[in-house]
Amino acid sequence: MQSSVDLASSVESAVGLHRVREPAGVLPQAAWRLDPDPRIGPDEVRVAVERLNLDAASFRQLRDAHRDDGDAIRAEVLRIITERGKMHNPVTGSGGMLIGTVDEVGPCSPLGLAPGDRIATLVSLTLTPLAVTDGLADWDGRSEQVPCRGHAILFARSVAAKLPDDLDPRLALAVLDVCGAPALTARVVSQHLRRDPDRPPTVAVIGGAGKSGSLSLAAARRSGAARTVGVVPTTVERDRLAAAGLADAVALADARDTVALARAVTTALGAPADITVVCVDVPGCEHGAVLATADGGTVIFFSMSTSFTAAALGAEGLAADVTMLIGNGYVPGHADYALQLVRDDPALRSLLAARLSAD
Amino acid sequence: MQSSVDLASSVESAVGLHRVREPAGVLPQAAWRLDPDPRIGPDEVRVAVERLNLDAASFRQLRDAHRDDGDAIRAEVLRIITERGKMHNPVTGSGGMLIGTVDEVGPCSPLGLAPGDRIATLVSLTLTPLAVTDGLADWDGRSEQVPCRGHAILFARSVAAKLPDDLDPRLALAVLDVCGAPALTARVVSQHLRRDPDRPPTVAVIGGAGKSGSLSLAAARRSGAARTVGVVPTTVERDRLAAAGLADAVALADARDTVALARAVTTALGAPADITVVCVDVPGCEHGAVLATADGGTVIFFSMSTSFTAAALGAEGLAADVTMLIGNGYVPGHADYALQLVRDDPALRSLLAARLSAD
Repeated sequence: MQSSVDLASSVESAVGLHRVREPAGVLPQAAWRLDPDPRIGPDEVRVAVERLNLDAASFRQLRDAHRDDGDAIRAEVLRIITERGKMHNPVTGSGGMLIGTVDEVGPCSPLGLAPGDRIATLVSLTLTPLAVTDGLADWDGRSEQVPCRGHAILFARSVAAKLPDDLDPRLALAVLDVCGAPALTARVVSQHLRRDPDRPPTVAVIGGAGKSGSLSLAAARRSGAARTVGVVPTTVERDRLAAAGLADAVALADARDTVALARAVTTALGAPADITVVCVDVPGCEHGAVLATADGGTVIFFSMSTSFTAAALGAEGLAADVTMLIGNGYVPGHADYALQLVRDDPALRSLLAARLSAD
Repeated sequence: MQSSVDLASSVESAVGLHRVREPAGVLPQAAWRLDPDPRIGPDEVRVAVERLNLDAASFRQLRDAHRDDGDAIRAEVLRIITERGKMHNPVTGSGGMLIGTVDEVGPCSPLGLAPGDRIATLVSLTLTPLAVTDGLADWDGRSEQVPCRGHAILFARSVAAKLPDDLDPRLALAVLDVCGAPALTARVVSQHLRRDPDRPPTVAVIGGAGKSGSLSLAAARRSGAARTVGVVPTTVERDRLAAAGLADAVALADARDTVALARAVTTALGAPADITVVCVDVPGCEHGAVLATADGGTVIFFSMSTSFTAAALGAEGLAADVTMLIGNGYVPGHADYALQLVRDDPALRSLLAARLSAD
């Protein structure tokens, strides 16, 4: 009994329950409002914020809702942070991550950080207490990357990565933001290989030219995929991904068009994919992903636009025996793995850098 | 190329694309409106409907929205079916299943059915064309089980089970409605055992006294779980589940209370669970389920109330290395497996029968 009580009370402090203002008793991510008080507890860390990186689904929603009006988007983000004590888009339920410099470290923090460390948070902004002091004055409201002055709080069970010296910080931040995707893709490819060593799996990545998509393609190949296809929605992305050479094939399809998506993957691989990785931030891709996947295969949903019921009922309705994974942003070693992929592959690095410049 | 084009066109007909009225190009489950024309195509089957079994999340929403007013609930269900050509709750996104007698079978149907067969559909009502002819006159609007006259259409890739002669049809229907849960639970327990034969996994079932929960507990035990705990929200359910002896331990907790849920599981098992199965139809259980699960463990989400983003961001925010599965209602052999569990275990059968009477 003792151990479980210890577990519960240490969990309560480690996950930041004391920062929850309303409703009481829920974890910070589920809370409507957090307390961003700059005074830290013994196991907390305070970070001086430099830049927020909004989740793609969140930024898209804000842009759509405010018709690309940068001033209105900035005002809305500022309003959310002020009201909620965190950057947690109430419509999409998603957040993003941040970059900053460690300011103060509590004596009991287990994160291994020291004042002056430049870090990126690898836990979502939806559970990170945050206060902004500059009114986001340096942001034009037209990019996911938000220059920002203020502070954020890390808990004992937060995850943060020190920024590498050898990569552009903006590139590193973009990679770290989605580093769970390549790590989980690599794990699932390895699991399929262990189960059937004589038949390496084929892998389809929907949204293969995006950040998480291109990293997932690189991870699938490195982990031993037999053949990979990246599916993209435009000829520009098709040409860009083909030029980078990250996938064995590149196919053009609107991922929301169920039959078109299944046909594109099946044509490129000669059969449905053993593993399908969904990295596009638009709703309605669940059925196409299921239909593009072979019986006994696996679909990994990384898009925050994924509908749980659409996936569950879609697979059932298609009598599809596929394993469907909710993409977990945390896999041990994910940050180092993703950064190493970028270091090792100049084409991947160029693709990601080009995306950053275009943003 | 030929094979993929064949695949795509056969899929288009097999999954019922020709029954989609709006919007065009999506699968029947994603459609707003289906065409329930009683004239069947060559690979279709028409069923004379006897009874609908509404999905628990859907019925709960209807009951809450109409404050337990049976007449209003009946009118709303009738309105949905008439407007959408299927029983697809637009709020919850979920449906249910039906029972009926095969009326006509197209010459190319692969389902192995014949006129006169009494069957239950194992694909969701959200993708099953349905027309009602009796105005649901025999239903009081106060139960998930809806007596109903009308017809439904099955596609080539639908799944239907002939009703067994040796079980009460209402019991069989209730079991078949959730038969994906015990089958997937059994598969995940077996996978853990194969990976680590010397350490059988522990299993926690949240909502262990419900239909899918009690079946999942029975499946976990039969598949070789080391120890099982059923978590329930009330003392009535606790006593009922304890009396049935389906779990090694029974614990009382509100699954929406993250810390209470984690503490209940950890106390009952002496440690977090290797496998956690979420079978409660209320929102907000994602974080508790993740926190109740050991590193390297698996959470299976069967509840249609599951939020994809809450699960994904919750696990990330807790730095929890857990595999999260979207409960797929289709696992080959799931109907026979679930019915056999019920035949083999009188206590399970009694528990399910008692739940049916209480409904």
